[in-house]
Formats: sequence, C-alpha cells, structure tokens
Amino acid sequence: MREVVGIIERKKQGMELTRAEIYSFVDGCVNGDIPDYQIASLLMAICLRGFSLEETIVYTEALVKSGRTLKWDDSARAVVDKHSTGGVGDKTSLVVVPLAVACGLAVAKLSGRGLGLTGGTIDKLESIKGLRVDLSADQIRAQVMSAGGVIAAQGPDLVPADGIIYSLRDVTGTIDSIPLIAASVMSKKIATGASCIAIDMKVGDGAFVKDIVAADDLSEAMIDIGRAFGCKVRVYFTNMNAPLGRAVGHSIEVSEALSVLDGGGPEDVRELAVMIVSGLLRDSGLIRQPRAARSSAELHLDNGDALRALDEIIKMQGGSLTHFSASPPHKSSLSDRYVASPATGYISRVDPIQIAFAIRQLGGSRLSKESDINLAVGINEMVKVGEKVVVGDPLCRIYSASDNDSRSVEESLVGAFKISDRPGLAGQLIIDQRIS
Amino acid sequence: MREVVGIIERKKQGMELTRAEIYSFVDGCVNGDIPDYQIASLLMAICLRGFSLEETIVYTEALVKSGRTLKWDDSARAVVDKHSTGGVGDKTSLVVVPLAVACGLAVAKLSGRGLGLTGGTIDKLESIKGLRVDLSADQIRAQVMSAGGVIAAQGPDLVPADGIIYSLRDVTGTIDSIPLIAASVMSKKIATGASCIAIDMKVGDGAFVKDIVAADDLSEAMIDIGRAFGCKVRVYFTNMNAPLGRAVGHSIEVSEALSVLDGGGPEDVRELAVMIVSGLLRDSGLIRQPRAARSSAELHLDNGDALRALDEIIKMQGGSLTHFSASPPHKSSLSDRYVASPATGYISRVDPIQIAFAIRQLGGSRLSKESDINLAVGINEMVKVGEKVVVGDPLCRIYSASDNDSRSVEESLVGAFKISDRPGLAGQLIIDQRIS
Repeated sequence: MREVVGIIERKKQGMELTRAEIYSFVDGCVNGDIPDYQIASLLMAICLRGFSLEETIVYTEALVKSGRTLKWDDSARAVVDKHSTGGVGDKTSLVVVPLAVACGLAVAKLSGRGLGLTGGTIDKLESIKGLRVDLSADQIRAQVMSAGGVIAAQGPDLVPADGIIYSLRDVTGTIDSIPLIAASVMSKKIATGASCIAIDMKVGDGAFVKDIVAADDLSEAMIDIGRAFGCKVRVYFTNMNAPLGRAVGHSIEVSEALSVLDGGGPEDVRELAVMIVSGLLRDSGLIRQPRAARSSAELHLDNGDALRALDEIIKMQGGSLTHFSASPPHKSSLSDRYVASPATGYISRVDPIQIAFAIRQLGGSRLSKESDINLAVGINEMVKVGEKVVVGDPLCRIYSASDNDSRSVEESLVGAFKISDRPGLAGQLIIDQRIS
Repeated sequence: MREVVGIIERKKQGMELTRAEIYSFVDGCVNGDIPDYQIASLLMAICLRGFSLEETIVYTEALVKSGRTLKWDDSARAVVDKHSTGGVGDKTSLVVVPLAVACGLAVAKLSGRGLGLTGGTIDKLESIKGLRVDLSADQIRAQVMSAGGVIAAQGPDLVPADGIIYSLRDVTGTIDSIPLIAASVMSKKIATGASCIAIDMKVGDGAFVKDIVAADDLSEAMIDIGRAFGCKVRVYFTNMNAPLGRAVGHSIEVSEALSVLDGGGPEDVRELAVMIVSGLLRDSGLIRQPRAARSSAELHLDNGDALRALDEIIKMQGGSLTHFSASPPHKSSLSDRYVASPATGYISRVDPIQIAFAIRQLGGSRLSKESDINLAVGINEMVKVGEKVVVGDPLCRIYSASDNDSRSVEESLVGAFKISDRPGLAGQLIIDQRIS
C-alpha cells in the first residue's frame, strides 16, 4: 500500500489528515489491505503529532462504521452506557449495569479484558461458570430487548476496527494518546447506540491517567466526540490513589459486587455505583430531579432488584449465580492466608500499584494477551485508609494457588499498607465532575 | 516481545535509549524476535524524537556488528568509499570506483537499488548482461585483493540489520530521519573497512535533501559517526537543481559513464568524479598535495586506466563491456524520438523532478520494491542550463518501449526545460565542502 506511506508521511510532518485518508486507514485495517507495520508506524505518528478534534471525530466515525451499529426505538427504554478508564479493584460495572437496568434503563455494554495491572470486566464475568461473553450484534440486541442489559466482549460485529487497532496499540507502545483512547472508548458506545454515557475517569497512582490535567484533556475529548454524535457524556474524576473496595482479583471482585448488590459491601463501591446510576437516570431524562434519581438507585440496590437484574443477565448469557459462591475461596484447592499488621496505628495509605503487583505475582493478571490467568486468586478483606489496626491484626487475606505463592507476596503486601500515628485523609472518592 | 514495548515507550517519551536497548532492538530485527510492527513503531518514534549522537553511534555499531566485517591489511592499498545521497542522472559511482582504483586506491562498495525517483547503481550495473552483484563477503574481499575494486549489493553477509530496517523504513514513512540515514550509510562503509569516505550530498529540487540546513545536519552526523570509528569523512554539497550530465535512465547512464571514463562525456560528471577521487587520494595520504592529487585523477581518466579498471571489475563480476554498446539504444526494439524546442533562447532551467517523472512514466523507475523496471528506457542528449537553442532544435532524445510512450511524455518533457531570453546561471556544481 504505497498510498498509506503518503498518509504516514503527512501525519509525521504534523499535518491534518483528510476525511478520505482517515477512512482509507481504518478501512484498510479491517480489510487487511494495510500491513501491521504501516498501521503501527501511523499510530506512533498520531501519538506524537496528535489528532485535531475534527480528525478525532472522523476517526471515531470511521471506527463506528467499520461494523454494524445498534439502533433503538425511541419509545423503548433509554439505552445508556458506562466506562471506566481502569483502576485496581474496580468492579463498578458489575454493579452499575444491573442497577441501571433495575432502575428502568437499558445497557448494551461492550467490555474489555484486563491487560497490564488492571483487571477487565469480561475476565471477571468469566469466573462465573458457563457464562458466554462472545455475543453477536443480534444476540446483544435480543438480550437488551428482553433482559434490559448485557455485558459482552468486543467482537467482529461491532467496531471491529477498534479491536484490531487496539490489539496492535497494546504491543507497539501506542496506547497513551488522548485522541486514540477517546475514539476507542466512544466508538463502542456510539456503535451500541447509547444516548447517555458515564465515564469513570480514574485519577491517581493506581490509574492509567496519573494527573488531573491529562484526565481533563481526555474527558474533554470524550465530551466533544459525544456532542458530535448526539450523546450526553458525564465524566466523573474518581480517586485511584487506593484500590476500590476491599477486594482485588477476578472472582473475588465478583463476590464483592454481589455483596454491594445485596445492599452491603464496601461503601466506596456502593457510592460510586449509586452516583453513576443516578447521573444516568438524570441525563436520560427518566428522573430529572437529582435527589429522586439518587433515591431510586439506592432503593433498587437495597430491595434486591439490581441483584435480580444481574441474575437475569447472567442467566441469559448461560451462566448462573446459584453455583457461584458469594464468598471466597472459589476453588477448594486455594490456599488462604492473612497478612498481619506489623504495627499499631491508622492506615494512612494503601498503595494500589503494590497491590496490583502482588496480584500479578499470584498469577491473577496478564503480562501479555496470551497469558493464562488464574481467576480465583486475589486479595480480600483489605483494610481501608483511615481504619485503625492493632499489631497482629489482619491487613488483608491472600488467596493463592499455593502457600509458597502466598508467602512470596506477603512481604511486599505488608509494604503496601502504610500505618501512621494519626488517621490519614482518605481523599474524596469523587474529585470532580464534568458534563457535556 | 513485551520488553520492546518498554523501549518504544521510552523513545516515544523522548528519552535516550541505553546501549543494551539499542543492541536488543537491532539484534531482534535480525534474528526475527521483534515483529515488524514493533520495529515500525520504534522507527517512527526515532524519526520524531531523534537520536542523540551517542545513540546514533551505538546504533551504527550495532548495525555493523549484525553481520561480518571486512578488515584490510595496513600495508596494502588504502580502502576508500564513496556515497551519494541520490540525484537524478547521478552515475558518478560508475566513474569514481574505477578511477580511484586506477589511481592506486581500493574500493569495496556496497550499492543500493533505485527506489522512488532516483536510480540505483546496482540497477544500472545490471543493464550489463551477466554481471553479478550478489556477492558474499569472501567474494568481495577476494575481488578487492585482485582487481582493487568491487560494486556489490548489500546482502545477508554485511550489515544485514540495515537491509532489514531499510526495507521497512521505506514502506512505513520513516526514511527521513537524519540519525537513521547517517547510521545506514555509515554502517555499510564501516563494515567494509573503508578508512576514507567521500559523501556526495546532493542539495536542491532533485535531491532527497532539499535545503542546505538539513544537508549540513546530515553531513555533521556522518562526520561524527566517522570520527567515532576512525574514518575520515569528506562531504561535498553538490547542486541537484538540474540532472547530472545529459543522460537519465539505467543503461543510458552506464553509456555516459563510459564516455567519461574514455576522457569525454559531460563536464559536470567528469568534474565531480575528479573532485571526489582527488579528495580520496589526499585523505588516504596516497597523494597529499591537492594539485598532484587532481592531476593523478585526470591523468588516469584520460589515459584509459580508469576504463580498464572498470572493465576488469565488470569481468570479475561476470559481465562484459565488449557486448555493451557505448551508445544507446541498448535494445533494437526501442523507439527513439527527439523532443523539439518550442522556442529560441537560452536554457535557464532543467527541472530534475519533471525529468524523473518522465522516466517513471516510461517504466524506468520503481514505484515499489516489487516493480519491474525497463533498464533500457531513458532520456539522453539533454541540453544543459546556459546552452542556446533555436526553435525546432532537439531538447533531448527519448528512448522508450513504444512510440506511444514517447508521445505521452513529450509534453511534460518540453515543460521540464525553461527557455529564457538571456543565459541563466547554471549554479556552481560544488556548493560547499566539509571535512572531518
């Protein structure tokens, strides 16, 4: 493809690509006309030279048009969606999707697999035996029509270009580009026909986006893309200086989500889910009044509606919560071990990266796309910032494949928890909000 | 190769790569450990973020060490080399190599094939029937020992990494990077053991390097690399606002080179070759005095020694000049046609790009590496800037595969020659010089 070299050269020189050039690039990725090395070279040029808003919007449109799109009847339930930029222990989607459905909204969610230090919703769901995530566009549509919600993996039907480009970005050091990230996220939401989108933008040590300035640029790009396609976008900047909840690890996080859906669970997970769902209720116009929207979300969490909605979604996807134990361990062969506090005092910090590294050491996260992961391992019952501990008290509980594995992460896990004389500041969960 | 992603990320962020990182990249290219898309992505990051001098030198060294290297006995002939950055009608190597040999120097030259608008020495040589250019390191060494000179294609023995990386750069828009160009050129010269190198840096419309500032940066990089490896480098900045000589096209250029080696031919080709060889004689220490060096070069051109040296080189590579007609056409089936001047006046400009496009239309240059080229087509007997023409006089002569082809380029060829009332300035052939 000699023409592609011209496109690469122009972007390399910092020029704006034309609509025709962007489409020929995206189409060429899907139909195999453009070899990987040309895609990779152009992606790096985009990372370093950027995309204008106009280019970003056309690129998003080209991604959307690379596959089928779902359209919904205006008279039916409003279709909403939710996206998290990824954080340690983030199981919010597992609560938000059924809660939104229980509140009368519809959700056709395409989720991803985990890679690097954070887990993916699809992997977490797969810890539920028998559950199918590879669904066609027709299956997704049918399930939303009957159960109100679905959580599926991105496949060849919907935004195939994004799947192809994303997997190449992952191995060519071209992930961290604001226009590429924004277009990747938004194209999936637009293709599945969402009219309102909540973005959970994690900010902090354990997040992909480390500082609020970059988070702000990314949120602006997403809001601008949303506007171009007629989607309302609400961005929450949320604290990722500590893991979310008390559980990290695939099946362990599903259990924690279930406890939140049962009206319990850690306060931060519950609060985030309620906040996101009440925003979606307001933005969709279903409940315009903020307090009423929040009450509705709390009600449907507490009365078990959300848990029943998840149960139905999982059943329709071939899985069953009946056989899923609500509390770990999820495999009888697992070894479990408490990590004891070396001191007395207040927890002033829980380092999300050290927790994530421990999960990796336990075999619970992917080093490369081909890695096998152990869905049952993880860390549970973590103490939270501000809590008091006495020497010898448990800081957390490790579930691992062997006693050896547990012991090997124990020391670094102790280091993940900082203990001080005075209670530290936990930091607010929701740092800021931005709406289109 | 997950480690490579880290290297790519670091270069993307503008950081300096370590020696180990550069070696693992180059080695990974050669042993196939690094897939093309990762090479491409890193190359684009290097294009846009650059290489420090230190990185450039280590990268050059890694390229050199990717294959065998030739070493020469200090007591034997001094081994010198010459490189042109490429211009329209540039057949200088075909004169310089045998002339240097005739003057008592040795040349083990690795040449390239043409791509884009300029022709390659290897393709030109292949218009001589039976001539072999794919030689092993041992064959190259043996021929230099017996004939004093050789012109071979870059192959798997010498700097294989450069071959692999160059072919990928060509299709990923990553050609124009000063450190990558400088390292690519210099690695071949260093691997073949040259102690003095002449760089013919073409500057102007018909050159890869359009302006003198970029040319200067490139020459500095080459000189710096040379210094690091103990090579003397002399850079000539030469005028490429018009084609070199009167002939463009593979076999036609060989004929023109032969006429220069026979003491005739266009003045600019002769002058450039004499200049380069006298510089090499001085830099190698064979003849230190400038006038004496120049006289030696002129003498061996005029007395037929250089032509005999080429004859021997070609014979050793399996070809023969006996069967090569000194004047076109080189195929009896070719159509030839004069292009008539539409006006009377002085030639004030000959546009090298328009000439090169005409050659491409005639099938005489490559659009992609896989293209077949017709070595016999071309344009000959071009008028030069400053010459007077009367309406109807020939501006040039086209050799093409058919009358149709000739007619199709005729109009654009007329436009390549600008005719004015007053004689224009031809511009000096050698614009500047720089030595290490």
